[in-house]
Amino acid sequence: MEDLSRAAGITKSSFYHHVSGKEELLRAALERSLDGLFAILDERHATSGRPVDRLRYIVRRQVEVLQAELPYVTLLLRVRGNTETERWALERRRSFDAAIAELVREAAGAGQVRADVDPAVAAKLLSGTVNSIVEWYRPGRPGADALPEDVVRTVFEGVLARD
Amino acid sequence: MEDLSRAAGITKSSFYHHVSGKEELLRAALERSLDGLFAILDERHATSGRPVDRLRYIVRRQVEVLQAELPYVTLLLRVRGNTETERWALERRRSFDAAIAELVREAAGAGQVRADVDPAVAAKLLSGTVNSIVEWYRPGRPGADALPEDVVRTVFEGVLARD
Repeated sequence: MEDLSRAAGITKSSFYHHVSGKEELLRAALERSLDGLFAILDERHATSGRPVDRLRYIVRRQVEVLQAELPYVTLLLRVRGNTETERWALERRRSFDAAIAELVREAAGAGQVRADVDPAVAAKLLSGTVNSIVEWYRPGRPGADALPEDVVRTVFEGVLARD
Repeated sequence: MEDLSRAAGITKSSFYHHVSGKEELLRAALERSLDGLFAILDERHATSGRPVDRLRYIVRRQVEVLQAELPYVTLLLRVRGNTETERWALERRRSFDAAIAELVREAAGAGQVRADVDPAVAAKLLSGTVNSIVEWYRPGRPGADALPEDVVRTVFEGVLARD
């Protein structure tokens, strides 16, 4: 907290006037990434159209939010449930993942997603692929703009060349 | 170390007769998962055949090793480089990932992997998808046997239904 108040250019007691402590800071950071992710689900292309098209749109936007809010999303994905705030964030993450899984099921039911892979597994692999980006993505490197579309292509059509 | 010696049913001093300390235990656990992964690269189907077929074989085997050695692979993927042993493990992980990336490049060069996604990005997404399994996979649940093939299908052919 001392480092942070110094970085903000104010005294430690002024700093505590604004935030109650580490737990509140953690919650604010986690909220930032969760709000960014949940906002996607309310966007027009996420709420209307064929399930598979909504899914594709959400995956693209998820990568964009991850790129724009990298430190916050990384934090969210590292949280293991050690405090009340962490458990709250895990619960919200699970509810986001459940929304994606539901959409994969709908798309599978409509014959838009392959039938030979369990939709629950497909949903987990899909989320896992998107989330794994925080492990290596760094802003400003070449190819950053192409990443959302690269992920969409890879996840939906696979890495194989089409004949 | 006290908990471990109790679990092993020997005194703490007998325990220290076998291992020098936590760092050695960590190294042994990391070695177990790294040895399992690197052994795949020497298997016959990983060393001969079309690059894309070798890649497919390696991905399937990687999932199998992850399932068989779940706690060890999970540990490996959580290591962040805080000690000498962790940095050694990270270096070995990078060299495994580099072997996969090289194979993706070869397969792309041979026209077997799609040309519209950067092979380096495709390789990272591929490894990220496989590694993400440790976040949710638990042995013994239904579908465990189908998982390696589910992952291969999803990664290589994508989640979309084919017309």
